[in-house]
Amino acid sequence: MTLTDHSGRTSAPHDRRLIVAPVVPTESALVPLGVGELRLQGGFWADLQRVNAAGTIPHIEHWLEREGWLGNFDRAAAGTLPEGRRGREFSDSEVYKYLEAVAWELGRRPDEALEARFRAVVDRIAAAQEPDGYLNTRFGRPGQEPRWSQLEWGHELYCAGHLFQAAVARERSQPGADDGLLEIAVRMADLVCDTFGDDGIRSVCGHAEVETALVELARVTGEHRYLEQARLFVERRGHGVLEDIEWGRSYFQDDIPIREAEVMRGHAVRANYLASGAADVASEQGDAELQSVLRRQWQNTIARRTYVTGGQGSHHQDEGFGEDFELPSDRAYSETCAGIASIQFSWRLLLAEPDAAYADLIERTLYNVVATSPSPDGRAFYYANTLHQRVPGAAADPDEASPRASASLRAPWFDVSCCPPNVARTLASLESYFATRSDSGVQLHQYAPASLRTRLANGEEVALSVQTAFPAEGTITVVIDSDAEKEWTLGLRVPSWADEALLTVVPADGGATEVRTVRPGSTGVTRAFRRGDTVTLELPVAPRFLHPDPRIDGIRGSLAVSRGAEVFALESVDLPEGIADVADVVLDPSSSPSEEGGEVFVTVRRRTVDDAAFPYTTESGARTDEPFRVRLVRYHDWAERGPSTMRIWLPTL
Amino acid sequence: MTLTDHSGRTSAPHDRRLIVAPVVPTESALVPLGVGELRLQGGFWADLQRVNAAGTIPHIEHWLEREGWLGNFDRAAAGTLPEGRRGREFSDSEVYKYLEAVAWELGRRPDEALEARFRAVVDRIAAAQEPDGYLNTRFGRPGQEPRWSQLEWGHELYCAGHLFQAAVARERSQPGADDGLLEIAVRMADLVCDTFGDDGIRSVCGHAEVETALVELARVTGEHRYLEQARLFVERRGHGVLEDIEWGRSYFQDDIPIREAEVMRGHAVRANYLASGAADVASEQGDAELQSVLRRQWQNTIARRTYVTGGQGSHHQDEGFGEDFELPSDRAYSETCAGIASIQFSWRLLLAEPDAAYADLIERTLYNVVATSPSPDGRAFYYANTLHQRVPGAAADPDEASPRASASLRAPWFDVSCCPPNVARTLASLESYFATRSDSGVQLHQYAPASLRTRLANGEEVALSVQTAFPAEGTITVVIDSDAEKEWTLGLRVPSWADEALLTVVPADGGATEVRTVRPGSTGVTRAFRRGDTVTLELPVAPRFLHPDPRIDGIRGSLAVSRGAEVFALESVDLPEGIADVADVVLDPSSSPSEEGGEVFVTVRRRTVDDAAFPYTTESGARTDEPFRVRLVRYHDWAERGPSTMRIWLPTL
Repeated sequence: MTLTDHSGRTSAPHDRRLIVAPVVPTESALVPLGVGELRLQGGFWADLQRVNAAGTIPHIEHWLEREGWLGNFDRAAAGTLPEGRRGREFSDSEVYKYLEAVAWELGRRPDEALEARFRAVVDRIAAAQEPDGYLNTRFGRPGQEPRWSQLEWGHELYCAGHLFQAAVARERSQPGADDGLLEIAVRMADLVCDTFGDDGIRSVCGHAEVETALVELARVTGEHRYLEQARLFVERRGHGVLEDIEWGRSYFQDDIPIREAEVMRGHAVRANYLASGAADVASEQGDAELQSVLRRQWQNTIARRTYVTGGQGSHHQDEGFGEDFELPSDRAYSETCAGIASIQFSWRLLLAEPDAAYADLIERTLYNVVATSPSPDGRAFYYANTLHQRVPGAAADPDEASPRASASLRAPWFDVSCCPPNVARTLASLESYFATRSDSGVQLHQYAPASLRTRLANGEEVALSVQTAFPAEGTITVVIDSDAEKEWTLGLRVPSWADEALLTVVPADGGATEVRTVRPGSTGVTRAFRRGDTVTLELPVAPRFLHPDPRIDGIRGSLAVSRGAEVFALESVDLPEGIADVADVVLDPSSSPSEEGGEVFVTVRRRTVDDAAFPYTTESGARTDEPFRVRLVRYHDWAERGPSTMRIWLPTL
Repeated sequence: MTLTDHSGRTSAPHDRRLIVAPVVPTESALVPLGVGELRLQGGFWADLQRVNAAGTIPHIEHWLEREGWLGNFDRAAAGTLPEGRRGREFSDSEVYKYLEAVAWELGRRPDEALEARFRAVVDRIAAAQEPDGYLNTRFGRPGQEPRWSQLEWGHELYCAGHLFQAAVARERSQPGADDGLLEIAVRMADLVCDTFGDDGIRSVCGHAEVETALVELARVTGEHRYLEQARLFVERRGHGVLEDIEWGRSYFQDDIPIREAEVMRGHAVRANYLASGAADVASEQGDAELQSVLRRQWQNTIARRTYVTGGQGSHHQDEGFGEDFELPSDRAYSETCAGIASIQFSWRLLLAEPDAAYADLIERTLYNVVATSPSPDGRAFYYANTLHQRVPGAAADPDEASPRASASLRAPWFDVSCCPPNVARTLASLESYFATRSDSGVQLHQYAPASLRTRLANGEEVALSVQTAFPAEGTITVVIDSDAEKEWTLGLRVPSWADEALLTVVPADGGATEVRTVRPGSTGVTRAFRRGDTVTLELPVAPRFLHPDPRIDGIRGSLAVSRGAEVFALESVDLPEGIADVADVVLDPSSSPSEEGGEVFVTVRRRTVDDAAFPYTTESGARTDEPFRVRLVRYHDWAERGPSTMRIWLPTL
């Protein structure tokens, strides 16, 4: 344990408290780079960040007001609750996630008007906090259920967690902003510790989230008590401390203590938030056993319970993981928030234990879940990310919240609207997941045009720029912008989808060019880099077929196409005249996917099935016509041309 | 419209009111035979009926008392509700379904003790009825929600429907029993008509059921008003009269008027009960258009939204139909009640419009859904009937109600316990679905050892016995037990699973034997039958592979085995030492299923899959070993040897 109390705020080694990032362990193998140390310079992700700032963040603010979820705080301050309270029990959390997104945004790019709006929201929240620090618009007032009386479904601690994360983001992005948000969070956190300590309520929240948030708050404030409370929450869960429910206690991971579980299960967002909190606790406590347990759970979950998109959760009923290899495309839930939560978990493991596999999954999930959710204007979202759309959906009303998580087209808002602000806070802090430093160098985990400037433990200042058209093209060129006195290592991830890549080092001084073949995993170049040195990684990005594990029933006899980490889909709007539905074609498995002008094509045949009175017959009644080529769409771009049917996995029979 | 009012109770043609059966249309192409006209004489279904009477009915009575659902009526009578009310909002209906089961049972076999228990329950219900006829323990008292204030979820009319059906069963089985049950039902039905008429609440119940029950009550009482109210309910639904819910109004079929729908959708029990009620209305009103709409919906539902077991409903979330061809084995809901409701719908269509296809589906559903639900002792039940069990379940506690519909082993009772009493009332009246008469003869729809005695419209008395070991063997011998003066037709269904069958007629008088080949559908023998004449139908019952429609994703590249209408499954307890899970074998598609000693075998190979870090790879990593034979289990007998994994569809790759 290296945290100290408030009086010793400078104890963190190497000024980690100055890092403007969502996750800053006190000690870790890799050190995150904050907003400001790495800047995205155009390209796929910078574009999404721009749309997030210009479109999504104002859009969320609009809906929070319109739905009255911000107004709930005003009513709390005015003492008029519960009358007129709007939204579900967790609606406060959406306000906090909005604040977190804005805090990261302001950390990258000061904006007076946005700053003023941020402060105005904080003031409204402050007015709603009760004298003892309690803050939640849904519980505890006359006419409301008592505080902490609904741990299974009340989301009080969950909301508190998002409050803490917003305060952490603000404190890291604009230290000393003096808007009162950190104090609000600290007062609530103190109350949580007073209430849920060893002498208090020995239970947990039905939705994990406060665990990771308490650790972050401990890191920012140096308050050890918050970490200890997080540890208590992590260790308590799994012992049946919550009431059983229809879907079983696995829904909120209260079925098996975290140290005994082999795989993630139950509600996919809850499972990943819990795992993230546990990873944070393990990191702060140097708990190698817990770290190892989490790695095993992560590995088993990726090997058996994850979609090709990186998405997780195959049950609509409980928004949960199914059993091993239960991964139906058409009923994929793959909630956007679960993808975000999975990135959070993978990232924490990566910081503790450098392994390219974690960054591989982050990349896959970023491209195929996080980037899929928002519409091009950032004002409509997928909540669930199906891999197979059977029936063209109706266009969502841009002026109406969708009652359904499984809206077939992106919707502007949801009655349960966790995903839009979760996308916003993720994209607003996105660069913090792209690179790290260590004592001996910097590591590039994700590839995008960027400039990077940081200082290593040895005092060496390192600057570089990444020049690439990735993911459209596979060449990544790193140009060094600093002169080193000592050797350091430029770490590069060779993604698992690249069988073999080419690494070229061209010294600026005209020295010998070094060329070598590298295999998936972590690679690197160690030298006393000089300004102008270039390191080029050439990744093979030709489109390829993927075969599924034969234990996955829904996609047996089917192939998917990926190009890099981007997964492709066949969308019915790309079918020729006369073929209305993706169900009416089968893939020609003897063909190969091809690329032309940045587009990817496959060869398919139209299939005709004799309509039978009963669809199970002693002989198969399907016929196919002549093959033809059809364009695929990048999955993250699907459903942008109106209602359509779509499938990622293309049947060969 | 042929019903008349109370004063004209004898108007029904040919004494249909004397028929002791659940469905007795005033006019129909086929006339049901009641309990008493056809008697099962041993064999598969008589055994199930015996277990139902000896095991299930007392078991249900025990649980209704134990759970306090019967006690709710006592509390209502004592005026102590809502305090102490037990069970969900529809718990009253389970008591009524229990009464219906007992009424049919008493109709077959008088039993003084059972009769006394029946009357005692009726007395407790009578005491709970309010002065204006209202009867429901969940609504309307101080401290409860007002009557009819929760049409979406309150199930008040649903409960009323089951009350009516119990009263109808009693009146038909023991006319003039004078226990007051019919009067209770009539008073409640009058209140329903007063409340929901054209001048009243212009809405419907969130769970269809009262529609078919009102028609039956009209048939029994001759009260036209009940039929008119049923018609109003059927026609109103589909116009968005209920509040929208997260899963959409299709959940309770309030999305599309019944005359405009192409296929069944939403909650599968609700959909089939509604369709049954609509079929009843169409029948009484001679509404050929509605009849035709229902036929189309039935056909489309069977062709695209029904499992090979006859089960319906592929979503756990809303217990509902999925989209066309969305039929995953592992997430099959296939609720027992949905199977029963589907039989009710098919039966009504068959009475109106003789078509062997309806009886084909009834047969399939009886063997693979209704017979699958109860345990051999009739004291535990499947609620959902999955086609693929991935993980061996834990043994259900015989002394505890299961909170989950999807219990992996049969459970003694459920918090939502609609299925056990639904099985009980179905088995108690089962023979009424086996044969019919018409003006010109009798029709055998299902085959079982039985004796049959009825009178045709022309006054001819017809008696016969069915001698068969079906479904174990395929020979069905009908021996005529009456001497006819005029010709009549013995109708026989040749099931759709029989490509071709052999029909042999051997006159008792030594006349020429007639032998002919018959094809699936309805066939018959017309003659002036004499006592001792025999008609033999030989059905081919060798086990066969079934191929799925290629549009069903979850079973692509897989085959199932059926023998007659019985579907088989591979259960892990039948695998050789060293192979623990059905997921570890693949079917050899070049082999054929074989039969030996009444058991069915297939040839499979053990499959080994390289465990990958991520289950989607550029090359497939599966290997198979030498082939071996393995026994399959009849699906309705699975999970009777302890926890196991199981699958009906066997992958070939």
